[in-house]
Amino acid sequence: MITEVENAQQGIITEKMRNVAKTEGVSPEYIMEQVEEGHIIIVTGSGRRKSVAIGKGLRTKVNASIGTSSDIVNLDMEIEKAQIAERYGADTLMELSTGGDLDLIRREVLKSVDIPVGNVPLYQAAIESIEKYGAVVKMDPDFLFDTIEKQCEDGIGFMAIHCGVNRTTIERLKNQGYRHGGLVSRGGAFMTAWMAHNGKENPLYERFDELVEIMKKYDTVLSLGNGMRAGAIADSTDKAQIQELVINAELAERARKNGAQVMLEGPGHIPIDEIEANVILQKSLSNGAPFYMLGPIVTDVAAGYDHVASAIGASLSSAYGADFICYVTPAEHLSLPFPEDVKEGVIYARIATHVGDMIKLNRRNRDLKVAQARRDRDWDAQFRLFIEPEKGRKMLRKAPPKEQKTCTMCGEYCALKIANRYFKEFEPCR
Amino acid sequence: MITEVENAQQGIITEKMRNVAKTEGVSPEYIMEQVEEGHIIIVTGSGRRKSVAIGKGLRTKVNASIGTSSDIVNLDMEIEKAQIAERYGADTLMELSTGGDLDLIRREVLKSVDIPVGNVPLYQAAIESIEKYGAVVKMDPDFLFDTIEKQCEDGIGFMAIHCGVNRTTIERLKNQGYRHGGLVSRGGAFMTAWMAHNGKENPLYERFDELVEIMKKYDTVLSLGNGMRAGAIADSTDKAQIQELVINAELAERARKNGAQVMLEGPGHIPIDEIEANVILQKSLSNGAPFYMLGPIVTDVAAGYDHVASAIGASLSSAYGADFICYVTPAEHLSLPFPEDVKEGVIYARIATHVGDMIKLNRRNRDLKVAQARRDRDWDAQFRLFIEPEKGRKMLRKAPPKEQKTCTMCGEYCALKIANRYFKEFEPCR
Repeated sequence: MITEVENAQQGIITEKMRNVAKTEGVSPEYIMEQVEEGHIIIVTGSGRRKSVAIGKGLRTKVNASIGTSSDIVNLDMEIEKAQIAERYGADTLMELSTGGDLDLIRREVLKSVDIPVGNVPLYQAAIESIEKYGAVVKMDPDFLFDTIEKQCEDGIGFMAIHCGVNRTTIERLKNQGYRHGGLVSRGGAFMTAWMAHNGKENPLYERFDELVEIMKKYDTVLSLGNGMRAGAIADSTDKAQIQELVINAELAERARKNGAQVMLEGPGHIPIDEIEANVILQKSLSNGAPFYMLGPIVTDVAAGYDHVASAIGASLSSAYGADFICYVTPAEHLSLPFPEDVKEGVIYARIATHVGDMIKLNRRNRDLKVAQARRDRDWDAQFRLFIEPEKGRKMLRKAPPKEQKTCTMCGEYCALKIANRYFKEFEPCR
Repeated sequence: MITEVENAQQGIITEKMRNVAKTEGVSPEYIMEQVEEGHIIIVTGSGRRKSVAIGKGLRTKVNASIGTSSDIVNLDMEIEKAQIAERYGADTLMELSTGGDLDLIRREVLKSVDIPVGNVPLYQAAIESIEKYGAVVKMDPDFLFDTIEKQCEDGIGFMAIHCGVNRTTIERLKNQGYRHGGLVSRGGAFMTAWMAHNGKENPLYERFDELVEIMKKYDTVLSLGNGMRAGAIADSTDKAQIQELVINAELAERARKNGAQVMLEGPGHIPIDEIEANVILQKSLSNGAPFYMLGPIVTDVAAGYDHVASAIGASLSSAYGADFICYVTPAEHLSLPFPEDVKEGVIYARIATHVGDMIKLNRRNRDLKVAQARRDRDWDAQFRLFIEPEKGRKMLRKAPPKEQKTCTMCGEYCALKIANRYFKEFEPCR
């Protein structure tokens, strides 16, 4: 397959470029140029249906992660979660199952949605190695590469691959000592264990060009994983994380030059005053590759409400220039998410990325229309414009106002109603 | 009554100063100095029970507003809401009833909690004038002042009073034209209507020194209301809002010099890139008076989820230096909040102010302890430290892991468990 980057390098505008340009309201030429520069990637939809562009100048996208675990394997529930994520506006899905028949689950989930589906191929390779040999450290690198290719073939649109967890990175982790929050990336933990036990370099780093060739063959987007992301505020922006980012940025450049589409993943847990620096650093080191941030979660004390902590972090990330946000559900740090958690996670992330896009892209037209509909006390117009109108409608129905064009908060003493009388004669604000 | 400011001016450390110093973990001398400077206020608790300090160098406080409306009058529910707010950690309450027997409701709410209770006295004066004469514009200024004194006598600890909605401010509002979001402050709308109809200056501005004398008599904190706050992103930080802030800052200085305790209220709806400027401006104009921010709400499109939009705004406000945050519930813009909305509003605001205090006060010890407990997979220690542990416990019980020290997200492939094996031998991070 000729990849989108290779087409762009030859000045060819593909059908996918045209489609995403239309969706984003930009020109196909802009998409082509930015794909060539590596500032925009186009992820192919499940069943090659709906493609999504991620990167510079585009709306910040939201990913919803689903998948079984060794404790809870319920394919129907995973399909329900996938479809709920799509219905409530997730732009992509990550299928991160670690329990049950992994091939079957992946293929069924791919069939169940139109949006692009990503994953972490290391999970299947590691788990099947554990099942076969009793330990992840026995995983055969060739088996890992074969698993990656099999999943590409199935139609996975983007893959988080932990190439940057190499000897240099692990040395930083060792030198700085046992982290307050330990290691929280499953991929990072698997690779670290494998390398420590075998005393060998990470095969995903060592055989990187081979990996890039597989990605190119299917034009699967390579998402350079963040195995050293902090799982605690006290560990944020530490040497191990930044070392991995430096390595990943170097690899991203190499992959792009070789014609692959690539993005970088970011943390994790970060206090709000370090978010801007993390975005600037990623953009500068990678020459503007798309940045996929996991949240971030901005405090460790909010379990049960980590979707709130993450909405705070995601709004800032997006405002500062992150391109793609992985949602966090209320179940984070507590359990596998259930369908209602997925729904809430998607809605919160969409609110956060909208708040960020109001700054990053100066997109405020929808806010303006809501404001005017609210001033004119037009409920229908407001509900048409809300990010998620169902909940608001329910709340209004639960407590219907006596006077139709007000609400029960102020009732007859509605400030808008009172003030409109005195100000309607004035010229409207510009 | 000799006010806290007057005591501080004479170098006297009062019992209240000592009590709040202990709660805040600072010295009584620090409290006294900052009260004298007007950087800290001490609000007296309901029934003169529990006092709360708000301002420079102290934990950001959370207010929960409750109260009836003309549509829903249910005293039992208001008392339930007041007690839920206190139980989930609100530092203060505002009793904002506009329906039913306002004296009775206020007195019953005051009896039902220990935390300080604030209000907006203009509501009662305006509504009783409407009931008596048919229109707010008929309100007698003397009746407004008498109402204020009656409420102070009842034990109201702080009062939002709209002094800054004066002729100068209204001129800005007229000159800039009809706002996209109209006028959303009830107090602002009442005063604007009164002034427009009567062609007179705002009595709360004109007779400001008289107002200050009443406040001093009871040492009620004067909270200079934000009648011009934007109710829409498109109107944020506009001339009317800033004009009122300038006037309020001037009045704050005058009140403090006369020995009253005073703070300023802030907006409203603000995009996240204007929050810092709003805080800097308030602090600079008012010589560091405590800043009480209403949210802010950072997008207009999230009705049903405005507690999320507000948590984003409140975390930034608090990080930049706001001292006191009014919660926003999921019912905002839709209905009077019900008890479950109050609970959620308080929790979200507490998460947000904690996130801000991690920056403003560098308070991260609780986060560090959670991180270490999480690394060591100690559920009990984590639940003891979460801001609100009930929800997390429920989620863990709903999906109990097979192995006790993990959760169903990763089950046997718990990254922490895997990595701890390889890293436990290392020295801990500093």
